[in-house]
Amino acid sequence: MTTVYNFSAGPAVLPDAVLRTAREEMLDYNGTGVSVMAMSHRCDTFQSILYHAEQDLRLLLGIPANYKVLFLQGGASAQFSQTAMNLAHGFARIDSVVSGNWSQIAHREMGKLAAAEMHLAAHGGERYGFLDVPPAESWDVSPHSAFVHFVANETVHGLQYGGMPKLSDGLPPLVCDMSSEILSRRINVADFGLIYAGAQKNLGPAGATIVIVRDDLLDRCPDHIPAVWSYKAHVEKQGMYNTPATYPIYIAGLVLRWLHAQGGVEQMERLNRRKAETLYAAIDGSGGFYQNRIAAAARSKMNVVFTTGNADLDSRFAAEADLAGLRQLKGYKTVGGMRASIYNAMPLAGVEELVRFMDEFRRRNG
Amino acid sequence: MTTVYNFSAGPAVLPDAVLRTAREEMLDYNGTGVSVMAMSHRCDTFQSILYHAEQDLRLLLGIPANYKVLFLQGGASAQFSQTAMNLAHGFARIDSVVSGNWSQIAHREMGKLAAAEMHLAAHGGERYGFLDVPPAESWDVSPHSAFVHFVANETVHGLQYGGMPKLSDGLPPLVCDMSSEILSRRINVADFGLIYAGAQKNLGPAGATIVIVRDDLLDRCPDHIPAVWSYKAHVEKQGMYNTPATYPIYIAGLVLRWLHAQGGVEQMERLNRRKAETLYAAIDGSGGFYQNRIAAAARSKMNVVFTTGNADLDSRFAAEADLAGLRQLKGYKTVGGMRASIYNAMPLAGVEELVRFMDEFRRRNG
Repeated sequence: MTTVYNFSAGPAVLPDAVLRTAREEMLDYNGTGVSVMAMSHRCDTFQSILYHAEQDLRLLLGIPANYKVLFLQGGASAQFSQTAMNLAHGFARIDSVVSGNWSQIAHREMGKLAAAEMHLAAHGGERYGFLDVPPAESWDVSPHSAFVHFVANETVHGLQYGGMPKLSDGLPPLVCDMSSEILSRRINVADFGLIYAGAQKNLGPAGATIVIVRDDLLDRCPDHIPAVWSYKAHVEKQGMYNTPATYPIYIAGLVLRWLHAQGGVEQMERLNRRKAETLYAAIDGSGGFYQNRIAAAARSKMNVVFTTGNADLDSRFAAEADLAGLRQLKGYKTVGGMRASIYNAMPLAGVEELVRFMDEFRRRNG
Repeated sequence: MTTVYNFSAGPAVLPDAVLRTAREEMLDYNGTGVSVMAMSHRCDTFQSILYHAEQDLRLLLGIPANYKVLFLQGGASAQFSQTAMNLAHGFARIDSVVSGNWSQIAHREMGKLAAAEMHLAAHGGERYGFLDVPPAESWDVSPHSAFVHFVANETVHGLQYGGMPKLSDGLPPLVCDMSSEILSRRINVADFGLIYAGAQKNLGPAGATIVIVRDDLLDRCPDHIPAVWSYKAHVEKQGMYNTPATYPIYIAGLVLRWLHAQGGVEQMERLNRRKAETLYAAIDGSGGFYQNRIAAAARSKMNVVFTTGNADLDSRFAAEADLAGLRQLKGYKTVGGMRASIYNAMPLAGVEELVRFMDEFRRRNG
């Protein structure tokens, strides 16, 4: 059987070792006689699973002690509204950076439940046609805003902040969606007020959402919002305000343990750089057969978009790649072309196999 | 090894057959070479999983064609707020029935984002000390309310509407939380405006939430609410507004297929009646050693609460039962005593084993 490599943008490839452990423990977790799926979220066994997942995440990202970690539900989309409800009460303005498709949706949705006005701090579409990201130095932000929201990596446009934005002292806290890049490179958590991430790209299966929040910001959470969407309520109940998505959390915990075994985030960053360089080199070295027009420093190391410039040929590429065991390479509907998502769990061998296929496809069609 | 029976109130026991299928398909779903956990929610394979889950649910519950089915996230707690945001816009009042612990929380939370005022239509605590449920005929409801909310089965107090409430024509739509009893007995979906259920009791793992909503009510959903919490937005995008909790949905789909194989809801209802009768007979026949004071018609067939009347003895019961492979029998913290949750996936043999243990424990301590 052909080895299958899964380039899905999310839900995305998971480490084989994780899936094998999950398979082994499916009917009986650790001698309890019970599946993790069938356990009360309040029982000691699940509490231990949750505790270790949090501790592993803390170690891997170097999360300072004054940050709380929550495993919530609803994906990044729910965080658009939750950040506004929880952190913008009593503020007149939220600054928001649009750098691609996802942050554009964030900008629209975030304002719906906030009394604060949404202020466009920068728009990478108007300025760069989404071929580059607006640098932090160019953002129009106010010290009086509730926070500044941005998306570190844009999966649809294949854009990523090469150097992670940082705001100078006196400016409002940074709130960042890291769904599609969390744990793929080292970051300084202390530069952020809040980080959130849907798990289904670099961290586990869909259904779990990570929130890392500086504890002084919890004082902003108003009491009048629904407890199920209140960070403060979840922190006060140690993440047990309501039943969390226990099985996705368990799988995320296995992924975090696997990351430690791989050498942690530093080693992942090295591997991810090598994977991305290999793929971009194949595109740039194709004599124009494959194209990626993103500014060099803003090329995503997670989602590599490319096209032949011919929609029919692009469709054939994706279809033939699929038959060769290279799955989910079709680009997002609004952008077209191809997209290879090469998150942490994609091995270098998968990228090398894709490059071999690209060369061969080019020879046949060039 | 002792057979383990899991009486957890939720996340709860799942059919062994379902877990075995999940184990088998963990690394390779149906020859795709990809785990369901690692698949794009938009790919044909997952779309087919979702489609079959919905169709199976429709068949099992007899859901009329003018009802939409959604698989959302956030659990029943999120539905408290979503029902209010989506269905009460422009209304002055929501009628709410408090029949136990869960509906009390619903009453508090539901009003937080609604402009409508929460009106207490009945309070089973004040009237019956939560030993009976307020009958529908006694509810104080207005034809002008947005809807009437109630909880069909209360897991903490072990209370259940024996006959399902129905409102006469001209009264507002019924909105019902069926988390802890969905698919355990036949219902007439057409009697409800909206039914919701967190999956983690009778339907699958935590993380998936079912919403069944009459389509004319979707016209009420205002545009100004966040799309991630809008029923209309999810219906318009065929459940793909954002990434759903794909793996929990897949497991729920396996449970639904298993329910068909067991003979559907009618057969489940028969089995659940027999399980509940067996357990209540053991309590009532214990010469007062075990007690359950719930009114006969309101005794839950899903969550059977009982106590020896002695907190130390209750603790010993739960601890010794655990050693005998009868898990999670400790009652909820605010109620104490014991609670045996005997959802669809609990076999009769598990209840019989529990009854044997109860008899033996009584002989040793009576």
